[in-house]
Amino acid sequence: MAFQNGVSSSPIKAMLHVPTIETNRNEPIEIISFSPIQNGTQNGVQDGDSFSPVFPGCYVDIAPFYPEQGHVYKVEKVIFKGKSQYQDLFVFQTSTHGKVVILDGSLQLTEKDEFAYQEMLTHLPLCSILNPKKVLLIGGGDGGILREVSRHACVEQIDICDLDKMVIDVYKKHFPDIAIGYKDPRVNSYIGDGVAFIKSVPPATYDAIIIDAFQGMGAYATELSNEDILKSIAKALKPGGVMSAPADSIWLNNFAMEDTITLCRNIFKGSVNYAWTSVPSYASGSIGFMLCSTDGPSVDFKRPVNPLDPSNFGVAKGPPKFYNSEIHTAAFSLPAFAKSAMGSKYA
Amino acid sequence: MAFQNGVSSSPIKAMLHVPTIETNRNEPIEIISFSPIQNGTQNGVQDGDSFSPVFPGCYVDIAPFYPEQGHVYKVEKVIFKGKSQYQDLFVFQTSTHGKVVILDGSLQLTEKDEFAYQEMLTHLPLCSILNPKKVLLIGGGDGGILREVSRHACVEQIDICDLDKMVIDVYKKHFPDIAIGYKDPRVNSYIGDGVAFIKSVPPATYDAIIIDAFQGMGAYATELSNEDILKSIAKALKPGGVMSAPADSIWLNNFAMEDTITLCRNIFKGSVNYAWTSVPSYASGSIGFMLCSTDGPSVDFKRPVNPLDPSNFGVAKGPPKFYNSEIHTAAFSLPAFAKSAMGSKYA
Repeated sequence: MAFQNGVSSSPIKAMLHVPTIETNRNEPIEIISFSPIQNGTQNGVQDGDSFSPVFPGCYVDIAPFYPEQGHVYKVEKVIFKGKSQYQDLFVFQTSTHGKVVILDGSLQLTEKDEFAYQEMLTHLPLCSILNPKKVLLIGGGDGGILREVSRHACVEQIDICDLDKMVIDVYKKHFPDIAIGYKDPRVNSYIGDGVAFIKSVPPATYDAIIIDAFQGMGAYATELSNEDILKSIAKALKPGGVMSAPADSIWLNNFAMEDTITLCRNIFKGSVNYAWTSVPSYASGSIGFMLCSTDGPSVDFKRPVNPLDPSNFGVAKGPPKFYNSEIHTAAFSLPAFAKSAMGSKYA
Repeated sequence: MAFQNGVSSSPIKAMLHVPTIETNRNEPIEIISFSPIQNGTQNGVQDGDSFSPVFPGCYVDIAPFYPEQGHVYKVEKVIFKGKSQYQDLFVFQTSTHGKVVILDGSLQLTEKDEFAYQEMLTHLPLCSILNPKKVLLIGGGDGGILREVSRHACVEQIDICDLDKMVIDVYKKHFPDIAIGYKDPRVNSYIGDGVAFIKSVPPATYDAIIIDAFQGMGAYATELSNEDILKSIAKALKPGGVMSAPADSIWLNNFAMEDTITLCRNIFKGSVNYAWTSVPSYASGSIGFMLCSTDGPSVDFKRPVNPLDPSNFGVAKGPPKFYNSEIHTAAFSLPAFAKSAMGSKYA
C-alpha cells in the first residue's frame, strides 16, 4: 500500500534517493524535482536539491471514479501513518490546504475546505424540517458533522456510530477544530458497524439520519444501493423524517442518478432530491448529496423552513463558513446536462 | 520552457529514459512509472514499462494563484506544441477529459468542461438584458463564446478581437465543436490588440462586451484592474449595457473582491455583481465572473429577463449543456465565507 512506506521496490529509486510522490494506487510516483511554486517561472533546481526540504515530494489523489485526472498536493510534513484492523490512515501537512486526510486511499478531507461538505451534508436535511430532536450520524467519526449538528438548539439527542476508533483518536489529536463536535453534551458516541446499528434502531426513532460512511449514492454505491439497508434507514426515521448522504458528482463521466432516485422514491416514499456543492479537494471539485424524506408531513428540501440561528454556534468556534439559506436553495439548481442525467421522472 | 520538449537537462533523466510529467513551471517532473488507473489497485509495473504506451507521462497544471496544489492529467498523445510571437500553445489528448489546451503555461480549457465556462460567461450577461443587438468579444479566439452568442437570435452583430492567429488556427483545426462559433455569419473577426480595439470603439456602440482575455478580475487582475481600460469598456457600452469577465475563484487563499467591486461601481455606475460556477479543470474546481452594467436602464443580473430559446441552437450542434435560468440565478448565491470576503458594501 502507498501508505506503508514512501519507498518503492524500484532499484533505480534506491540509486537516486529521490523524494516520493505517493498516490492512492499501488505504485508510488517518484520525482527528481518539484518546481517550487512560490517563485513562479524562475527555478534553478538541481537534482541535488531533491534532498532539500523545498522538495519534500507530493501526494497525488486519484479518485477511482474520476479516472486519469488527479489532484497533487505538495507535502510539507507527514503527520500520521497508521493501519487499523479496518483501514489505512495517512495524514499530511500542506502549507496552503492545511492538513490532508487520506483514508484507505481516498481523500477524506482537507482543512481548507472540509466545512463545505460537513455543513451542507448536515444543514440541508436539518434546515428542511421543523424542530428536529433526535439525529443519527453513521460514520463521520472526524466530528465535523457533530460540530454542525451542534448549531441546532432544538436537537436533544445526537447519536453517532463509527467503526474505527483509530480514526476518531487521530482526529481528536490532530484536528481539534473538527473533533470539537464531540464536546457537545448531547452526543452519544458508539463504536461499531453502522449497518448493524441502523438495523437495531427501533422504528420511527430519528428525525434525521445523516450518512457519512460507505460509498456515496449513485453509479458506484455499494451499501447505499442495497435496498435492505435503505429500508432500515427509512424504518428508523419518523414520518416526515429526513436522510442525507453524499452522492456522485455531476461531473463523473457516467453520471446517472435515475436508478438511485427511483430506488429512493420506492423506499422512502416522501421527497427525493439531489443537491450539489463545491468542494475543491474532491474529484471534479464538487460533490452531490441525496436528500430523502419518509412518508408523513411533506418536506420541501429546496425551501428551508428551519433556518440556522446565526448567534448559536453550538460547540463550534464561529458561525458557519459555507452554509446559508441562499446556498441551500441554490444547491438544488442543476446544469442542463445533469438534469438530463437525472432522468425524465425527475423534475 | 516546458513546451519546447519533453526532455529536461537532467543527466539522470537521459540515463533513465523515463517518461515526463510536464508542469506549467520551468522544471519538468520526471516519473519512473504512473499507475494505470484503469485497473485499480493491481499494478505490476516494471521500470521497463515506462516505455509502454500505458505510461506516456502526465501534465501537471499548477495555477500561480492557487499554490501547492495541482491537477495532473494522464497524457494519451501530444496533439500540438507551438510558439507564436505572443505565447506558447500546448494541446494534448486525454482519454477521459478530451483534448486539453495549455496557453502560456495556464490551462485554458478541456473538452470535458469547457462549456460550463463558455456558456456562463456568455449567457449571464446576454440573458440579463432585453434584445441585445451588438456584442463585442475581446479574446475568446477559440470560438466557444461565439458559439454561445450564436444562440441569441436578437443579436445582429458579433465582433471579436483576439491577438493570436496561431491559437485561432489550432482551434479551427483540432476543436471543430468549439471553433464552430466562427461559422455564424454575424461574426466579424479582428486579429489584434484587444485594448487598442476597445479604445477605438465609438461611445455607446455595444449592448454587451464579453472579456475572455487578460487575467481574471480580482486580487491578481492586471489589465482589468486598470481604470483606463475599464473606463474604455464602460464608454463602449450603451446605457444599460453589460460587461462580463472572469474573476477570482472564491477558494483562492486570499479571495477578496471589495476593491474590485468598488472600482467597478465607480466606473460602470450600474449594477455590479459577482457570480461563480463549477469548472472542474480550473484551479479549485470553480471560477468567478464579474458582471457590470452601465448607467441607464437598470439591470438585475440575478433575474434573467431574456431567457434562451431552447429551440434555437444558432451554429451550435445542440442545446446548452450547462446554462439554464435556474443555474443563472443560483450562480449569484455565495457561501458565507465568500460573502464576507466581498466586503460589507456588497449585499
